[in-house]
Amino acid sequence: MNRRRVGRILTSCAMLAASLMLALVHCAAADDALPSWNDGAAKRAIVDFVQRVTKEGSPDFVSAPERIATFDNDGTLWAEQPIYFQFAFVIDRIKALAPQHPEWKTKQPYKAILNGDMKALAASGQKGLLELLAVTHTGMTTDEYSKIVSDWTATAQHPRFKRPYIECVYQPMLELLAYLRANGFKTFIVSGGGIEFMRVFAEKVYGIPPEQMVGSSGKLKFEMRAGKPVLVKMPAIDLIDDKDGKPVGIQSHIGRRPIAAFGNSDGDLQMLQWTTAGEGARFALIVHHTDAEREWAYDRKSHIGMLDKALDEANAKGWLVVDMKKDWKTVFPFSVAVKESN
Amino acid sequence: MNRRRVGRILTSCAMLAASLMLALVHCAAADDALPSWNDGAAKRAIVDFVQRVTKEGSPDFVSAPERIATFDNDGTLWAEQPIYFQFAFVIDRIKALAPQHPEWKTKQPYKAILNGDMKALAASGQKGLLELLAVTHTGMTTDEYSKIVSDWTATAQHPRFKRPYIECVYQPMLELLAYLRANGFKTFIVSGGGIEFMRVFAEKVYGIPPEQMVGSSGKLKFEMRAGKPVLVKMPAIDLIDDKDGKPVGIQSHIGRRPIAAFGNSDGDLQMLQWTTAGEGARFALIVHHTDAEREWAYDRKSHIGMLDKALDEANAKGWLVVDMKKDWKTVFPFSVAVKESN
Repeated sequence: MNRRRVGRILTSCAMLAASLMLALVHCAAADDALPSWNDGAAKRAIVDFVQRVTKEGSPDFVSAPERIATFDNDGTLWAEQPIYFQFAFVIDRIKALAPQHPEWKTKQPYKAILNGDMKALAASGQKGLLELLAVTHTGMTTDEYSKIVSDWTATAQHPRFKRPYIECVYQPMLELLAYLRANGFKTFIVSGGGIEFMRVFAEKVYGIPPEQMVGSSGKLKFEMRAGKPVLVKMPAIDLIDDKDGKPVGIQSHIGRRPIAAFGNSDGDLQMLQWTTAGEGARFALIVHHTDAEREWAYDRKSHIGMLDKALDEANAKGWLVVDMKKDWKTVFPFSVAVKESN
Repeated sequence: MNRRRVGRILTSCAMLAASLMLALVHCAAADDALPSWNDGAAKRAIVDFVQRVTKEGSPDFVSAPERIATFDNDGTLWAEQPIYFQFAFVIDRIKALAPQHPEWKTKQPYKAILNGDMKALAASGQKGLLELLAVTHTGMTTDEYSKIVSDWTATAQHPRFKRPYIECVYQPMLELLAYLRANGFKTFIVSGGGIEFMRVFAEKVYGIPPEQMVGSSGKLKFEMRAGKPVLVKMPAIDLIDDKDGKPVGIQSHIGRRPIAAFGNSDGDLQMLQWTTAGEGARFALIVHHTDAEREWAYDRKSHIGMLDKALDEANAKGWLVVDMKKDWKTVFPFSVAVKESN
């Protein structure tokens, strides 16, 4: 064969290979990407949206850089009952630090935690909570804090499922994250949880890197210690990334409006409003906890993850409300054989 | 042909195509990626670092997600003389708003700007500057602000080069950004400039998307206006992303330590310290403005972009100091035929 013919054959090969790869991507996107979702309106709505915004020439086409999707964490990507997992960390941390603080035995809100007295703990209110957060989340460097959280996630177990907390994540949502990314979306977490707390595990668990994390945060201070620069976590709030704070966090960190947002509670309402108020195709999804058997059933009256106003607005505006019991074939990556005891 | 044989041929084609693509990528990375850099120690140091951290099996190999590179903007990616470009925007904006504010004719610091009295302007100090920033950067929604900046960048011209400010960017740095990205780096801006100001043009000019921008910022407030959510820019500072603030901004937005950082002044010193204090291969580069002919020559005594302590530390620690006059074949994307007149 002469060189020109070889060139032509190689070009054909490359084009064939490209077509094959496209075909494979297409297959992955169409049928198998969401195996833990039951066939039904919810799954169809998701796939329909993704197809509309990714199909070139479609009136709803959105260029890849604008395909921003934001996910709440607690109750949307992982469970949030019986207490927020980060609060379980606070409790475990107070217990671990208690031997160095004998005065805590008689001082609230520490005493309440050490005695497991949830009523007294609740009575300490927001002031008590902020003090607990300050003691467990500040006063150390960012590196020291990451190490503490990392050690905790490796050992602490969820009280009902007897699994590490980082395994109590929703399999259908893991598939949804991967499906969106396979279709050119950039996925972000936008959570009321601590930004540095989530960064410890979010890349491994969700495939979401630290730079795509938006969360509540405290002030940081740059210092030189023995000639080495460190960042110290200070006891002063920077952003509470909840409710009104979510669009603020989105603008601060992402700088453009998401085209799709995913939440489960009234804390996500403003994020869903902000997302759907943009022009062009938009998508808003609410995970409704309806499955007391495999997970929990709660909404309007829950003290954790209250879903009331956002449920009304979802119904009024036609946002997708996912019925966990009906729409999810599987809830967790592990199979659940444990009924709630409390 | 039977199906099996077709399959084998297709597989070979795909492998060939993949090899071809790899070869093309390799070509792009090796020789031609930095054509505006003169051959010499600076260019060699850059290429050497990139090759070391990207070569699998190399002791200095860094996985792609950890290849974070942060760039200062003023004086590093675009020029900063005779005044910071964002301050030129402030001046133009005050002039544009003046007809609605007849009282400014007799009130400092506005009067100083309207009369071009730079001495009186300087005398108004930090208080005056903050007032000017508040008037020009706050009180409107984020969308309104972006439109104002976008209109300004489309028309405003640099006084010496008679070009739009967004063309007064350094061609060698554009090539460096692209070269790093071609080698799996994620490039971020970390600048004392306003985050929302830079987001307007950084994607088009530098290929850096809004979500990879770290900058000085003000507080935002979520509001409903006629049933539509907006974010209002408030006259309260959130972060001054300069000096000590740079590692803070990096941690807040990126959440991991860069392996390479690029600056030009003492405002970048802490970012360079923070970057190089990490383990493994690290790279710090300072653009030294040495070219009065094609750009400007300034360092230790300059009121803009002072380079003094960082120059000493660069020399002491072996950070790469780029001599603009010697190391850059080209400075701007346009050719410079204009000598400075002031």
